[in-house]
Amino acid sequence: MIVLLGSSGYVGGYFARELETRGIPYIAPSRTHCDYYDPSAVTDLIRQVDAEYLINCAGYTGKPNVDACEADKTECLNGNAILVGRIREACERANIPWGHVSSGCIFTGRNDLGAGFTETDPANFSFRTNNCSFYSGTKALGEEILADCETCHIWRLRIPFNHVDSPRNYLSKLMRYSRLLEAENSLSHLDDFVRVCVDCWVKRVPFGIYNATNTGSVTTRQVADLIRKHLTPDKQYEFFKSEDEFMQMAAIAPRSNCVLDNSKLLETGIHMRHVEEAIMESLQNWVWEPVDAQVAV
Amino acid sequence: MIVLLGSSGYVGGYFARELETRGIPYIAPSRTHCDYYDPSAVTDLIRQVDAEYLINCAGYTGKPNVDACEADKTECLNGNAILVGRIREACERANIPWGHVSSGCIFTGRNDLGAGFTETDPANFSFRTNNCSFYSGTKALGEEILADCETCHIWRLRIPFNHVDSPRNYLSKLMRYSRLLEAENSLSHLDDFVRVCVDCWVKRVPFGIYNATNTGSVTTRQVADLIRKHLTPDKQYEFFKSEDEFMQMAAIAPRSNCVLDNSKLLETGIHMRHVEEAIMESLQNWVWEPVDAQVAV
Repeated sequence: MIVLLGSSGYVGGYFARELETRGIPYIAPSRTHCDYYDPSAVTDLIRQVDAEYLINCAGYTGKPNVDACEADKTECLNGNAILVGRIREACERANIPWGHVSSGCIFTGRNDLGAGFTETDPANFSFRTNNCSFYSGTKALGEEILADCETCHIWRLRIPFNHVDSPRNYLSKLMRYSRLLEAENSLSHLDDFVRVCVDCWVKRVPFGIYNATNTGSVTTRQVADLIRKHLTPDKQYEFFKSEDEFMQMAAIAPRSNCVLDNSKLLETGIHMRHVEEAIMESLQNWVWEPVDAQVAV
Repeated sequence: MIVLLGSSGYVGGYFARELETRGIPYIAPSRTHCDYYDPSAVTDLIRQVDAEYLINCAGYTGKPNVDACEADKTECLNGNAILVGRIREACERANIPWGHVSSGCIFTGRNDLGAGFTETDPANFSFRTNNCSFYSGTKALGEEILADCETCHIWRLRIPFNHVDSPRNYLSKLMRYSRLLEAENSLSHLDDFVRVCVDCWVKRVPFGIYNATNTGSVTTRQVADLIRKHLTPDKQYEFFKSEDEFMQMAAIAPRSNCVLDNSKLLETGIHMRHVEEAIMESLQNWVWEPVDAQVAV
């Protein structure tokens, strides 16, 4: 039995579906059913259902984007750092291992060797490097709170996407933004991501941090070209002239754009396809969201 | 009517006494009576008692010292950053101004001009400068959460002391540590500090940050000499050879040692005596704590 926290969110919903599909029993308590911030309540639930693992997908992401976090610093810090410590305490009290959805957004660029960041590279887009959005700062603090936790998988998600149109889907965002920022990024296909995370538990992969991104990286132009090729041949994409112009015209908080190395994950024997393959497959199987659903979000 | 949060703590107790002495009506709810983290509960209390001001002395300080914060990051972050945001929300909902006990420990050294830090200098001992203890990092985040708050007095306390022996009193600490670290610091005489804070409200001083320290600064050796002169003539004080030796032998987290400029406070017309005068007066009126009380702490 697995306890799944945060199943009502974008990522959490895909975890629920993945566990369902694989026939892994789980319970997904809502926040009203169980106060995620109360270690006693979470420990009690773990014991009640005799869970052997917990997955935390709960966290605070700004809506529609990270700029919103700058206006709600307390909730952002609470959801991305305090909650991590609380859940850690609950799992340690109940003596079960767990997995936490972290983020690759605590990095910017490439590492000193010009390669993707590995799990041993320190975060370089955080409060400690003083160049980050408040959101990234809180996610890095969340990892800092887990630094000495020996019974936790920490999965770094990075810009989720898949074939289902959604305001949270990177491909949907690119199609709807009026102007794009050219940048190079590693990305996580959402269905691939949740499969890999559940595999970490099922295959008893060693605890620790994993960059759970698809192999390789892509630039915004490459993705825009793929979208035009496979989905919207008539659409033209405009780009900001520079990151400075983007920051002046469209953003409040600085953005993380970064390349992550997923070889630690691949070395466990878990498969992760190349990011371009995942993007193409998503575009070929694209499902548009009904217009009324978009309005409701 | 004033709502006083955190009155059971070292600093909070002196606020309660100060309000009592001045005949200012206040209510000091315990955490069991009112959940400080619940803006609705605090707002309700403010309205029930028709309070016109709130003072927050609640926060997380490591015991016996800041090293303890490194081992309890979640509670430290919760008590020094999240709580600040929650109380801000409560006061804004209830539409009353308030005052918050912050700390000068978000600075190290002297400013670029070799003078004391003023309220316009950015914190230089924080997560953002990546040189701090976890405690200082969370206190700086607390101030960051208040950066755009227009109805709050932020009082920076710095190494409290007075004439009453206590494990939290700087003079008591110097007398009991087996070896001292030579450093220069501004300090806050605790009775002076609470008087100044209450004055900020009573005299309707403009909202914003105030370095609520005694005028000037002292070195550890100067304080040790004063203690020997006025209180313990036979005691010899040993010093660490260097901060490196101190860090290796006696500390986990780096310490803030800093000089603060209190002229913004003085310019409001509120009096603050020189730190040496405050130390001498404390030593001349010294009251030893009973031994059993020390054990109980």
